[in-house]
Amino acid sequence: MGWAIALHGGAGDIPGDLPPELGELRESCLHRCLDIAIDALNAHKSPLDVVELVVRELENDRHFNAGRGSVLTNNGTVEMEACIMDGSTKNCGAVSGLTTVVNAVSLARLVMEKTPHIYLAFEGAEAFAREQICENNGVETVDSSHFITPQNIERLKQAKAANSVQPISIVDEPPVPNGDSQIGTVGCVAVDSSGNLAAATSTGGLVNKMIGRIGDTPLVGAGTRANKFCAVSCTGKGEEIICATVARDVAALMEYKGLTLKEATDYVIKESTPKGTTGLISVSTTGEVVTPFNTTGVFRACATQDGKTEIGIW
Amino acid sequence: MGWAIALHGGAGDIPGDLPPELGELRESCLHRCLDIAIDALNAHKSPLDVVELVVRELENDRHFNAGRGSVLTNNGTVEMEACIMDGSTKNCGAVSGLTTVVNAVSLARLVMEKTPHIYLAFEGAEAFAREQICENNGVETVDSSHFITPQNIERLKQAKAANSVQPISIVDEPPVPNGDSQIGTVGCVAVDSSGNLAAATSTGGLVNKMIGRIGDTPLVGAGTRANKFCAVSCTGKGEEIICATVARDVAALMEYKGLTLKEATDYVIKESTPKGTTGLISVSTTGEVVTPFNTTGVFRACATQDGKTEIGIW
Repeated sequence: MGWAIALHGGAGDIPGDLPPELGELRESCLHRCLDIAIDALNAHKSPLDVVELVVRELENDRHFNAGRGSVLTNNGTVEMEACIMDGSTKNCGAVSGLTTVVNAVSLARLVMEKTPHIYLAFEGAEAFAREQICENNGVETVDSSHFITPQNIERLKQAKAANSVQPISIVDEPPVPNGDSQIGTVGCVAVDSSGNLAAATSTGGLVNKMIGRIGDTPLVGAGTRANKFCAVSCTGKGEEIICATVARDVAALMEYKGLTLKEATDYVIKESTPKGTTGLISVSTTGEVVTPFNTTGVFRACATQDGKTEIGIW
Repeated sequence: MGWAIALHGGAGDIPGDLPPELGELRESCLHRCLDIAIDALNAHKSPLDVVELVVRELENDRHFNAGRGSVLTNNGTVEMEACIMDGSTKNCGAVSGLTTVVNAVSLARLVMEKTPHIYLAFEGAEAFAREQICENNGVETVDSSHFITPQNIERLKQAKAANSVQPISIVDEPPVPNGDSQIGTVGCVAVDSSGNLAAATSTGGLVNKMIGRIGDTPLVGAGTRANKFCAVSCTGKGEEIICATVARDVAALMEYKGLTLKEATDYVIKESTPKGTTGLISVSTTGEVVTPFNTTGVFRACATQDGKTEIGIW
């Protein structure tokens, strides 16, 4: 078997007539990230390095809801979160409530590598970031205004006018007018030709979320997980993904029920999570790649060492 | 079948010659909580109400590491966290980073019932608590000094002197002198005679933890979880429990592999978590109760409707 890679830029109710900013520009970024990933895997970088590299690129692109481009809380602030996990060692790191850190995924990796903990949040995570800057570990911080785009100020305005927070808006109320509010969490999963796996996810969360809200992304077993069977990164309505512990369940179905990656992810998407809530990307230790979803679409891309690539939305 | 209940006051390396404060006083509190739980179940209170009630009692007792009695961060502060989950609906609520809320478990329940989210943390969770006070929803806050005991000031001093944070101290270094540093997280699981399940866990975390550190307790699927198969509350080294998604794995082994509760929890305690790291309490929808651990001991108590009760440490 060879390496395999998948990445996503969020799931949701994606309308067919996307404006270029939401369609073509995102697709072209996914394309660029896929090329970066392919080069890195061909250069024998570790899956952990590859997923971090790709998620950093996606965080830096203002068209996705992570890093620059993160959606805003009900206070008009950004609170970013991320998680990274190495399937071989089961080591993992996570962060929540970041307001100044340019690349949340890299801080999550430093939590994993430089602390006795797995998960740091809010002021403690920011304090850790400042320490890591002093130790020259590659952390960059900026003023919070760096992350805030005019589009997200407008999205917050619309969400407040509709009195909507995403997990409610799609099912119970009309979606936010541009149909785009829940789209943009980013993630990457990779497996090398030796079967080593890694996963990473990063997000700004939900438009108009309450300050302090933690979603599925940083929770090991919910939005992100890797072990010796598979690596999973989720996107969609975080609260549903938490209740269903989606990322852990994919692996549990393989490990305990003997399902293939495709069978396990189909089961989770069809049986464990409500329609319209969940998308995921996953690779298995044997090089399978799947990108199932029960939303209208997921911005996604994948490739395998034998030369197959795919980029899709619906 | 009848109802069943189990509760715990933390797992760890519990020495045989415990001073009264760490042994008898804790056992007598467990006894009192068990009586409260039995009365509540006999009065047909819901499992969700019962686990909340019991965890509040344990939070209010200064001899356990939750609520009053919470251990201190490396800044000498308290940062409390909790989670509650209803197995019938899979609704859940969680909080982290509380500094003034007397009963974290009840705030977690309010997050579940009064917000579109599952999990609020740090300043946002405290702001939500203040809102709930204004709405007369039974939340009580106090000055942080209420939670801090002289014993925990001493434990922090010893941990700093040993340069120890708990997840490292037991395996790699001599334990904190009184052998008690990692003991005291509290939790409760209950099932009623109709098979409805609930779980709750509450903690102050680790002695000398970095500020902002989140452990397994509030993570649905790691330290706490309930569904239609079983309810689980964990205690021990949070970072190991997160990596192994212990609470979800117990249910997954029952659901996907057809194991009994005893078989599933034995597997998780023996195969999925390193020795010396993990204890858990669990009840199944058919009224089984188990309290396995791979540490020296767990402060624990359990009872079933047929009149059996048990209180134990080692």
